[in-house]
Amino acid sequence: MSDESWLRTGIGASDADSITLMGRDLATELMGRVTFTEVAFLLVRGRTPSPQETRLLDAVLVSLADHGLTPTVLAARLTHTGAPESIQGAIAAGLLGAGSVFLGVVEDTARFLEELLEEAAPDGSEARLRQAAARAVGERLAAGRRIPGLGHPVHKVEDPRTPRIYAIAEETGQLGAHLRLLRLVGEVHRERAGRRLPINGAGVAGAALADLGFPVELLRGAALLARTAGLLGHLAEETRSPLGMPLYREIEERAVYEPPEAGDG
Amino acid sequence: MSDESWLRTGIGASDADSITLMGRDLATELMGRVTFTEVAFLLVRGRTPSPQETRLLDAVLVSLADHGLTPTVLAARLTHTGAPESIQGAIAAGLLGAGSVFLGVVEDTARFLEELLEEAAPDGSEARLRQAAARAVGERLAAGRRIPGLGHPVHKVEDPRTPRIYAIAEETGQLGAHLRLLRLVGEVHRERAGRRLPINGAGVAGAALADLGFPVELLRGAALLARTAGLLGHLAEETRSPLGMPLYREIEERAVYEPPEAGDG
Amino acid sequence: MSDESWLRTGIGASDADSITLMGRDLATELMGRVTFTEVAFLLVRGRTPSPQETRLLDAVLVSLADHGLTPTVLAARLTHTGAPESIQGAIAAGLLGAGSVFLGVVEDTARFLEELLEEAAPDGSEARLRQAAARAVGERLAAGRRIPGLGHPVHKVEDPRTPRIYAIAEETGQLGAHLRLLRLVGEVHRERAGRRLPINGAGVAGAALADLGFPVELLRGAALLARTAGLLGHLAEETRSPLGMPLYREIEERAVYEPPEAGDG
Amino acid sequence: MSDESWLRTGIGASDADSITLMGRDLATELMGRVTFTEVAFLLVRGRTPSPQETRLLDAVLVSLADHGLTPTVLAARLTHTGAPESIQGAIAAGLLGAGSVFLGVVEDTARFLEELLEEAAPDGSEARLRQAAARAVGERLAAGRRIPGLGHPVHKVEDPRTPRIYAIAEETGQLGAHLRLLRLVGEVHRERAGRRLPINGAGVAGAALADLGFPVELLRGAALLARTAGLLGHLAEETRSPLGMPLYREIEERAVYEPPEAGDG
Repeated sequence: MSDESWLRTGIGASDADSITLMGRDLATELMGRVTFTEVAFLLVRGRTPSPQETRLLDAVLVSLADHGLTPTVLAARLTHTGAPESIQGAIAAGLLGAGSVFLGVVEDTARFLEELLEEAAPDGSEARLRQAAARAVGERLAAGRRIPGLGHPVHKVEDPRTPRIYAIAEETGQLGAHLRLLRLVGEVHRERAGRRLPINGAGVAGAALADLGFPVELLRGAALLARTAGLLGHLAEETRSPLGMPLYREIEERAVYEPPEAGDG
Repeated sequence: MSDESWLRTGIGASDADSITLMGRDLATELMGRVTFTEVAFLLVRGRTPSPQETRLLDAVLVSLADHGLTPTVLAARLTHTGAPESIQGAIAAGLLGAGSVFLGVVEDTARFLEELLEEAAPDGSEARLRQAAARAVGERLAAGRRIPGLGHPVHKVEDPRTPRIYAIAEETGQLGAHLRLLRLVGEVHRERAGRRLPINGAGVAGAALADLGFPVELLRGAALLARTAGLLGHLAEETRSPLGMPLYREIEERAVYEPPEAGDG
Repeated sequence: MSDESWLRTGIGASDADSITLMGRDLATELMGRVTFTEVAFLLVRGRTPSPQETRLLDAVLVSLADHGLTPTVLAARLTHTGAPESIQGAIAAGLLGAGSVFLGVVEDTARFLEELLEEAAPDGSEARLRQAAARAVGERLAAGRRIPGLGHPVHKVEDPRTPRIYAIAEETGQLGAHLRLLRLVGEVHRERAGRRLPINGAGVAGAALADLGFPVELLRGAALLARTAGLLGHLAEETRSPLGMPLYREIEERAVYEPPEAGDG
Repeated sequence: MSDESWLRTGIGASDADSITLMGRDLATELMGRVTFTEVAFLLVRGRTPSPQETRLLDAVLVSLADHGLTPTVLAARLTHTGAPESIQGAIAAGLLGAGSVFLGVVEDTARFLEELLEEAAPDGSEARLRQAAARAVGERLAAGRRIPGLGHPVHKVEDPRTPRIYAIAEETGQLGAHLRLLRLVGEVHRERAGRRLPINGAGVAGAALADLGFPVELLRGAALLARTAGLLGHLAEETRSPLGMPLYREIEERAVYEPPEAGDG
């Protein structure tokens, strides 16, 4: 117990008269002076963002806030059906499905790009990047594996979020290494595969967040911040026009009971 | 199954070329045009906020983002210790403790004010409000019950968030019925109890969110959106300087094992 | 820090050679000697159960393990769809909907009975119990409120679990005050209302758990232990024949997008 | 919607008069006839276990029920501190940390053994198994990687659960391929490494569950069923003698606030 260095925190503290957040006085330096998006950046990066970084981060969070009645949204609304008094439980249930299948693309793409960037370093020239991209794409095509960040089940030609993020990143001077490399990966893939897969919105969000300096192991967390706003919208709708209970009733009516065979399993 | 009205949603939809969120085209009308805070408002309220509303909402979300190493933050960091690969689980664990003891004040205060406002309606004059407040405060004092939104274990004289929210609300013309009534409740309490309890930051946040038109049953959800940003900060810190594992080790070392007595329970 | 009495635990401890659980040596006194059900009882009650108590507790847990494709089961399976690698998240999501609407009846019934028992104490005679039941049922009928533990949407005449639990409780000499009172409540209701509502399986489980000495505030927890086994079964089925993904796809196809009206909310 | 094969379930169903679970009538064939452990086996495996299988499964579940004040238990108790009214949230929080660091060993060991068994198949002779074990252990020792199932931070010489599980498995004729192979892995490791690492309780539990036919991807789920009983015990203790609130207060007092440096992150 002599070494208490593990019990240091830089996030928040308070005493009788003041509250401090990330080294700033909450009431006088942050409230009314920075937006919620800027505070989220501050919390993760340890400094406030430039207006250009804020603009890109806002666009990314807005792009990730909702994707309709996804499995995670359905899980949240069904949880609200059973425990409407515990809204924290409904939101938590709506986050828990953000794993390898849903939202994982955000993180997977950033991780994939990070590795290629390390491979191409210290040079990092366009040529080296293209070379690394070509190698990785080639290997994955040969192995029949997906390229993280490419392809979308609905937006088969173009994901509308992608050109928008690129436009905002360019306009704000925030087109960093990850976003540039992802575009290169898309080009290389098209050349190799002979067909065009769009860069998807989750992948481009992952690349943009990585360019904004969010650590890869937290990227899914940033996506979940965005998704929490979407869940609020769905839970507001659920209280106005319930979907969970009629969905359950319909499932119960339609479901066919087929007992397991003896010795099954 | 003929009536499918329950399967209508106004939150989000997408087709091959476009994504719609709350009736707006995501890429062209929202991304790069509204902030994340504005989208959160849109998702809950069904319309975009005025700049004044956005300013107040941003201040409220910033004020709620973090309260240091609270039980919920510790739960999130300890969960990350066991399952660092499932950041969604750590965030979910960090939200689940937002119940009657922690964060509940946000909702409780708004609910208390809402009931007084209904009681004072349809008139709603200052006199009627003061009367309703006097009755409620008197009853609670007599019963030895807490007044929602008053008092704080650390900020015994003044919660620094409170005057800041009131200043921003006044400056933006957003000082609504809930915020005005909460101030009245504080005054009435001081007169009756003969001592001053500060209006706390959670209570004022609840009143401000109610004035912004957030439904009472979702207020804790809005607080959880703010808190998710704080959790991201703590999880970023946890990956840099772990607190969960040394905390567990210390607890294990210090804990005294005292077996239950026979027949206990 | 001088008073560390809060850092005492009687649940478990271990050193280099042994592991202790509730004051027993895990390897030599518990493993192979008591069943999992007995250990659950020991953990909550602080002593091992009699064979009769075990028999009743097993029957109650078995009766609560599953109720088909309920909202909570659907939430678990949909969460598994998004994050199959985090089975802890799917199980957690499947527990979070156990609130006031689903599974709450177990706890509500026990709480209702507990209050009536206190009211009828210290006498506790059949006459006093019947009187307390008559008063409570009368009040609730007059107010149009439900009687906890009575009625079931599917089992309109008789819930098959109810006579079975009563038979096992009688046969094992475990027909305690809660179970007896619940039967009385059913009788009184029938006399007063002029129609028969069956005692439901959740209510009878709550009464039986209370008779077994489980504290009311943990009853829902005991039901969740049972439900975790059911969730395991559903997740096993989900890995063999997925329901989450096709359900999501169908919902997405059928859902009608109806944008919110301007100024809505 | 024409193909509804995905909406078949074999777990549970009910109609006005009866409830069916895994093809059995719940009230007459299961309640009072099988234990909760047997129902858990039935739910996962699709058939009821033999008395020998039940005995082994009970011993495994008992062995996994609790490990003291682990990070996941602390997360559950701290969540209860904030939201005591939502016990489902406290239990869920206590499960969410069961990931790669805690409880992951159960699954990792089974997966490791499963791969070796496939490698040694179709022969599966002792000689082939030893060969496969030797190769895998050699590779991992060379790479400085851990051998799943070997070693324990506290039980450095012998984990008391291990010989007990082996004794029960032998006594009941349930010493299957996974348990035998794990013992072989321990022997091979001792020969190669020149020192003895004990087979740990989590690893032996994973091997036993795999021998009982639990699918590898559900093993952690079975461990979580056991852990839910332990969490109930801790939450019962938390309601009697709170640990969460004093722990939070102490942390808050001891924590040193060290603001992030400008430009940090």
